[in-house]
Amino acid sequence: MKRTKLRYGMVGGDLNAFIGDVHRKAIAMNENACLAAGCFSRREEANKATGEHYGLDPDRIYPDYETMAEKEAEREDGIDWVSICAPNDAHYKAAKAFLSRGIHVYCEKPLTFTAEEAEELKKIADEKGLLFGVNYSHSGNVMVKEARSLVREGVIGEIININGEYLQEYLVDDIGNTDKEMLQLSSWRKDPKVSGGSNCVGDIGSHIEHTVSYITGLTLKRVCAMLDTYGQPLDLNANILVEFDNGCHGVFASSQVCVGHMNGLVVRIFGTKGAIEWVQETPNTLSLTLKGQPTQTLNRGMGYVHPETQALERLPFGHPEGLYEAFANMYRAFTEALLKKVNGETLTEKDLDFPSVEDGIRGVKFIHACLKSQENGSVWTDL
Amino acid sequence: MKRTKLRYGMVGGDLNAFIGDVHRKAIAMNENACLAAGCFSRREEANKATGEHYGLDPDRIYPDYETMAEKEAEREDGIDWVSICAPNDAHYKAAKAFLSRGIHVYCEKPLTFTAEEAEELKKIADEKGLLFGVNYSHSGNVMVKEARSLVREGVIGEIININGEYLQEYLVDDIGNTDKEMLQLSSWRKDPKVSGGSNCVGDIGSHIEHTVSYITGLTLKRVCAMLDTYGQPLDLNANILVEFDNGCHGVFASSQVCVGHMNGLVVRIFGTKGAIEWVQETPNTLSLTLKGQPTQTLNRGMGYVHPETQALERLPFGHPEGLYEAFANMYRAFTEALLKKVNGETLTEKDLDFPSVEDGIRGVKFIHACLKSQENGSVWTDL
Amino acid sequence: MKRTKLRYGMVGGDLNAFIGDVHRKAIAMNENACLAAGCFSRREEANKATGEHYGLDPDRIYPDYETMAEKEAEREDGIDWVSICAPNDAHYKAAKAFLSRGIHVYCEKPLTFTAEEAEELKKIADEKGLLFGVNYSHSGNVMVKEARSLVREGVIGEIININGEYLQEYLVDDIGNTDKEMLQLSSWRKDPKVSGGSNCVGDIGSHIEHTVSYITGLTLKRVCAMLDTYGQPLDLNANILVEFDNGCHGVFASSQVCVGHMNGLVVRIFGTKGAIEWVQETPNTLSLTLKGQPTQTLNRGMGYVHPETQALERLPFGHPEGLYEAFANMYRAFTEALLKKVNGETLTEKDLDFPSVEDGIRGVKFIHACLKSQENGSVWTDL
Amino acid sequence: MKRTKLRYGMVGGDLNAFIGDVHRKAIAMNENACLAAGCFSRREEANKATGEHYGLDPDRIYPDYETMAEKEAEREDGIDWVSICAPNDAHYKAAKAFLSRGIHVYCEKPLTFTAEEAEELKKIADEKGLLFGVNYSHSGNVMVKEARSLVREGVIGEIININGEYLQEYLVDDIGNTDKEMLQLSSWRKDPKVSGGSNCVGDIGSHIEHTVSYITGLTLKRVCAMLDTYGQPLDLNANILVEFDNGCHGVFASSQVCVGHMNGLVVRIFGTKGAIEWVQETPNTLSLTLKGQPTQTLNRGMGYVHPETQALERLPFGHPEGLYEAFANMYRAFTEALLKKVNGETLTEKDLDFPSVEDGIRGVKFIHACLKSQENGSVWTDL
Repeated sequence: MKRTKLRYGMVGGDLNAFIGDVHRKAIAMNENACLAAGCFSRREEANKATGEHYGLDPDRIYPDYETMAEKEAEREDGIDWVSICAPNDAHYKAAKAFLSRGIHVYCEKPLTFTAEEAEELKKIADEKGLLFGVNYSHSGNVMVKEARSLVREGVIGEIININGEYLQEYLVDDIGNTDKEMLQLSSWRKDPKVSGGSNCVGDIGSHIEHTVSYITGLTLKRVCAMLDTYGQPLDLNANILVEFDNGCHGVFASSQVCVGHMNGLVVRIFGTKGAIEWVQETPNTLSLTLKGQPTQTLNRGMGYVHPETQALERLPFGHPEGLYEAFANMYRAFTEALLKKVNGETLTEKDLDFPSVEDGIRGVKFIHACLKSQENGSVWTDL
Repeated sequence: MKRTKLRYGMVGGDLNAFIGDVHRKAIAMNENACLAAGCFSRREEANKATGEHYGLDPDRIYPDYETMAEKEAEREDGIDWVSICAPNDAHYKAAKAFLSRGIHVYCEKPLTFTAEEAEELKKIADEKGLLFGVNYSHSGNVMVKEARSLVREGVIGEIININGEYLQEYLVDDIGNTDKEMLQLSSWRKDPKVSGGSNCVGDIGSHIEHTVSYITGLTLKRVCAMLDTYGQPLDLNANILVEFDNGCHGVFASSQVCVGHMNGLVVRIFGTKGAIEWVQETPNTLSLTLKGQPTQTLNRGMGYVHPETQALERLPFGHPEGLYEAFANMYRAFTEALLKKVNGETLTEKDLDFPSVEDGIRGVKFIHACLKSQENGSVWTDL
Repeated sequence: MKRTKLRYGMVGGDLNAFIGDVHRKAIAMNENACLAAGCFSRREEANKATGEHYGLDPDRIYPDYETMAEKEAEREDGIDWVSICAPNDAHYKAAKAFLSRGIHVYCEKPLTFTAEEAEELKKIADEKGLLFGVNYSHSGNVMVKEARSLVREGVIGEIININGEYLQEYLVDDIGNTDKEMLQLSSWRKDPKVSGGSNCVGDIGSHIEHTVSYITGLTLKRVCAMLDTYGQPLDLNANILVEFDNGCHGVFASSQVCVGHMNGLVVRIFGTKGAIEWVQETPNTLSLTLKGQPTQTLNRGMGYVHPETQALERLPFGHPEGLYEAFANMYRAFTEALLKKVNGETLTEKDLDFPSVEDGIRGVKFIHACLKSQENGSVWTDL
Repeated sequence: MKRTKLRYGMVGGDLNAFIGDVHRKAIAMNENACLAAGCFSRREEANKATGEHYGLDPDRIYPDYETMAEKEAEREDGIDWVSICAPNDAHYKAAKAFLSRGIHVYCEKPLTFTAEEAEELKKIADEKGLLFGVNYSHSGNVMVKEARSLVREGVIGEIININGEYLQEYLVDDIGNTDKEMLQLSSWRKDPKVSGGSNCVGDIGSHIEHTVSYITGLTLKRVCAMLDTYGQPLDLNANILVEFDNGCHGVFASSQVCVGHMNGLVVRIFGTKGAIEWVQETPNTLSLTLKGQPTQTLNRGMGYVHPETQALERLPFGHPEGLYEAFANMYRAFTEALLKKVNGETLTEKDLDFPSVEDGIRGVKFIHACLKSQENGSVWTDL
C-alpha cells in the first residue's frame, strides 16, 4: 500500500531551542509526517523531557546520534529521514552517521565546516541515492518563489547588478565587551570551535548568498570581503563585493550590529528590463518594476502570481504567512519528494524544489572565500 | 493525574474549507490538544474524508452535530470542547447542542443571527459553568495585545477619536453582476438565510468593532450606518459613524469592493496624550506616537514591549508571525483556561484573555444596529 | 506690445505670516509677475516693513484695502490682480472691494462666511468679466492632476466609494484647556468672529471636499456630520458621512487633535475598475490599483504620466517638489489665464485649471451643511 | 550703509538647462540677492534669451566667462559672487577666472577634473580671502542637518558601519546601446572630455561621499571600487567598499541603471548606540533608532528637532519641502556669510555651514581613487 505519512527523527532541538521547535511545527503543518525518534540534546534531562513531550517511545530517545542512526536503521518502522538542528559543529558527523546507514537527511545550514566535508556528504548521498535537504529557509517563502519565476522567465532581462543585505542589531552590545556573561547571547555562534570560523557571514550572510542564487540561478565566482570583529573572536559585520558567473557585480552587506534592524534580509535583483525587491520582514509582498514603468507591489494570494506560486499558498491574500510557513514549504517539497521515493516513484527535477547538498557546498565555499579574502587584506578571492 | 492534553471536536471545516483548516493548524501549534471527533460537512463523503485524514475513529465521524453532541457527552473520553467553524446559520443551534450537554464551545463569529439567541447561549454556558470562546481572531495578534496594554495603562491618555477600517477588493465584481455563476465567490455570505442579514458588516465590519473594543475597553453606544448593496441582496460596503460609551466618536469603514486592499484591517486609536495604529497585513509592528514626539514603530519580540506581550511571542524579533499564530494565541488562552478547569483549578480574570460570549453578543448587536440604522435612512441607532 | 509680466498686490501676509510668504514665493517661481502694492497688515509698522522689504513704492503700501483698491484702480500701472491672504473675516469685503473696481482676485479659502456672500462675489466677477481664483492649494500638486486625469478618463471605472481624511495633531493641547495663553496657537481660527463658525472643517475639512471634487468631478449632495469641540468654542475634530450626486457614499475625517499626524491629507477614490490614493505628505507619488492587479506607485516625472501632467513638472523624477510648487502651479494657471486676458486673447475651459469662485461657493456650502447637521443632532443635511 | 542685498552672476544655466534654473529659483527664495550678470551658454542666442528673460542690462550678458570676470571686477556695481552651473569641464577655468579677480565663487560639483586643480583654486581663494561654496546640494536638506546634529552630539555613539546608496534607472537603456542618438540623454556626462573621467561616481556617487562626510565628520581613507561600464565609455554602476579615518567600514552603491529607482540617495549611519537613516525622496523625515528601542520617525517642523534645525525650516510640519528648499538652504548659508563679509563683519565657523572648496577637493579625490582602484583590478586604493 502506498504510504502517505513519513516518520522522522531529530538531532538537536530540545524544548528550549528556538529553531528545532520551528522545524517540528513546520513539519506538523504539512500533516504528512510524525516525529518518531530523537536525540534532542547532549544534556540527558533535556533530551528525555523533549522526547516525552512528543510522546516518543522511550527506546527511541537516544543518548547520541550515532546510536540513533544505528538503531533506527535496524528498525522495520525506523525513521525515513532525520532533521539535524544541532549547532554547526555537529552537522557533518551527524549527517554522515545517518547517510551512511541509508537514512535521508535534512540539515540546518551552514552545512559543514569545510567544503571537503560537504563534498564527502554529497558523495555518500549520491552513492546511496538519498535525499539531502539543507535548510536555507528563506527560499521557502512563497514570494521568493514568485521572484524566482519572474527572474528565471526573463521578465527583468539580463541581470546586471545585485544588492543583498541581512542586517540585525542584536549583538551590538558585544562591541568592546569583555564581560563574558554579556556574551552569552547566541554564544555558540561566537565560538569558532562550534560555529566553524564565522559568526555573521556564516549565520546570515549565507542566507543572502543562497536567496540570491535561488532566485537568479547565478553562481558566485569571487568575493572581496571586509569583515569587522570589533575586538571579538569572530565577525559581527561584513561588507562584501561580489561577482557572479555571468559577470554581474553587486554587494552583500550582513551585520549583527546595525541598530534599527531586526532580521532585515532584503534582496534586490536588477536586470536590463526590470528589477525585483523582496523584504523578509514583510514576506507576503514582492516589488516588481519594469523599465520605465511604475513599481508594482505584488501580493501573495492574488490571481496574477504564477500558478506554481499559487499552488504554494496556504492562506488567502491579505492573511499574513510568516516564518513557520516558509519552513513548512521547504519541508513540503522535501517530504513530498521523499514520499514519492519511498513509494518507488521516479523523481523529476521539479520535485526537488528545496535547497540541496550542492547549495550547502556552495554556501560553505562562500563563507570560506569571505574568511580567506579578509585574511589576505580584503582582496578578491575565488570561491 | 493532572491532564496536559485536551480532546476536541469540530463542526464544519472539511478538507476544502479555508477556516476550519486554520483552526486545526492553530490548535496543533499549541501542542496541547488533539482532534478526536467531528462533523465536518453535511456532505457525507467530505465529512468522512476529513475524519479519515486526521485518523479519527470512524465512530466519531458524525453525520450531524446533534448526534455528535449526544454521543460525545456520553463517552468517558469524550471531547472537552467543540470548535464550530460552519457557516453562520449553524452557530446558534450547534453551540446550543453542545453547551446543553456540558461541552465547552469555541465558535466562529458572528455568533448568532439575533442578540436573543446569543443571550440564550450565554445563559446556558453560565448555568453550566462552561467556557465559551468566540473567534474574533485578530485580537490574537501579539501586537494587538501590546496595543491593549498601552491603551489600558493610559499611555495615550483619554480616548477622543477612533478610526477603524477593514477594506477588501475581492467582491468588486459583484457590483452590477446578474450572472449567478460569478456570484459563487463566498456565496454563503451573500445568502441572507445563511449569513444572517449582513455580508460586509457581518463578516469584516464586526472585526473592526471587536478589535477596537478589545484594545480600548470601550463599548459602542450607537451607530449611524450607510450601507451600500450596489443592487445585490446584502451589503458590500459600509461607512459608519460611531459613538462609544465614553462619548468619544469615530468612524468605521468596511468594504469588500475597495480595489487595492486585500485584507486591510487598520485600527487607529487617538487619545489626549498619544495614538496607536495597527495594521493587520503587517501585524508584527505597532505604531505609537506620544503627543509632540516622533512616531515609534514597535516590533514584536523586542525587550521594550510589555512582559505579557513577550510571553505570547513564538518567534524572535524580525521573524514574521502571521494568521496561524493569531489563531493559535486565541486557542492557547482558551485551552490553557480549559486545562485549568478540567484539572479543577480556579480561573481568574487573567486566564480569560479570549473573546467571550459577551463579545459575541455585542458583535451581534453591532451588526443589527447597523442594519436597523440603514433601514431607517441611516439615522443614529442605539446598540 | 504683448505683456509678459503681471503686477499684483497683496492683502494680508506681512513678514511674520506663514501663508502670505508662501504666496509670494510661489508667484516668484513662475517669473511672470511682480509685487507692486500691498496692504499687508492692520498694524502699521508690520505693513510698512513688509512693503519696504519688497522695495515697494511707499505710495503703494496702503493702510487699508478699500484705499488700495480705489487707488490701484486709478493708476495706469495699477495691479492686475490682488491676492487676499488675510484671515477669513476679511475675504468677502476685500474681494468685493477689488472686484467692484475691476481688479482680478485670487483669494484664500474658505472664501466667505456665508454662501450668499460667495454668490454675490461670483455675480460681480461674472458681470465684470474678472478672473477669480480660490486657493485650494492641494489641487496644485502635480500628482493630484495626474489622479484627476486618470479618474476623469474612466481608468478606475464608475466611482463607488470615497475615503478622505485630513489629520493633524497640533491642537490636541486645546482639549480641556482653559488657559487662554495656551490657546494662542492659530488663535484666529478658533474665534468664531474671525474664522466664520468652524475651525477644523473650515480649515482642513474643506480641503478634503475640494481635492475629492477636483479629482472626481463629483459634487457633494448631503452630509451627516459629527463634530467634536471638546469644550472649546469651535470644532477640533469631525467625522462626516458624505453622499455625492452620483449616489456614491463615503467618509471624510478631519481633525486637529489626532496625535501622530502632521498634515495628513489622504484621498482615496474607489471605482468599479480600480482605485487611486494620494497622500499630501509624500506628494510626488500616486498609488493606482487596477482591479485584480498589483498596486502601482506612479512617480512624478516619469514618461508614463499623462502629457498634461508632464507639462506641469518643474523638476525631474525623484527630485521632490513640495508645497511651494503646489502653490506655484495654482498661480501658473491663474496668471497664464490672466496674461491671455490682458493681452486680449480668448480663454478656453482648459485655461481655467484653477479653483474658481464656484469651488469657493461649494466649499462654503459644505462647511455650513456640516455645521447645520451637527446642530440638528448629526442628521443628514443637504448642501 | 549696511548692505542687505547681493548681486550675482551666473556661468551656464541657460533657459533650457535644468540645474541653472534651480539655482536661480533657490536664490530667489532667500530674497537677498538679484541676478546682475551672466554668461549662460556658449550658444549666443540662448545666452541672450536667458539674460533678457531676467531683464539684465545687455552689457552684462557676456559672450564668455573670462570677459565677464574681467568686466564685472571693474564695475562699481559688479557682481558679489558667481554661480557656476556649466558642465564639469568649465568649472576649473571659470572658477579661476573669477577668483583671481576677487569675485567669490559658488560652483557645481564635481569641482574639477584633478585634485591639483581643486587645490589650486583653494589656494587662490585662501590668498584672496574669498568664499568658495561647492554645491553638494543634498546637505542643504533640513533633516540632513538634523542628522548631523544628532550624530555629532554622539546620540548614536561611535560610528561602526556606513551604508550609502544612490540609485537611478534613467540610463539603463545605455546598456548594450550602440545607437548614438539614444545616448543623447545626459550626453555630456558620458563624454570623458566634458565630465572628467567618471559618469556615475562623478555625478551621484560623489553625493553619497559628501552627505556621509557632512553628517558624520568622518573622512574617507581608502576605497575598493568595482565600476561597471557595460560597454559604454564611462561607468554606469559602482559598488564600492569604503574605509574611513576612524577605521569604520561600509559600502557605497551608486547606479544609473537600477530599474525602480528615481533619485534614490539613501544614507544609513550605524553607531554603537543607535542609527539614523535619511532618504532623499522623502526628505522631510529622518529615522532614528536608539539601541534596543523602537525606530522613531522624526518630522521636520516639530518641536523635538534641534533649535538649529528649526531655524532652517521654511514651512510648518507636514508641508513638504523639496529640492528647491535644499538648494535655497545652501545659498542662504553662503549668502548670509557673504553679506557679513561685504559688510566687514567677522565670520565664525558657524557662518560657514555650506560645502567648501575642501569638500570639493575631497570629492575629486574620491572620484579619482575609485577610478584608480578600478584600473588596478578593484583593489584598495588610498584617497
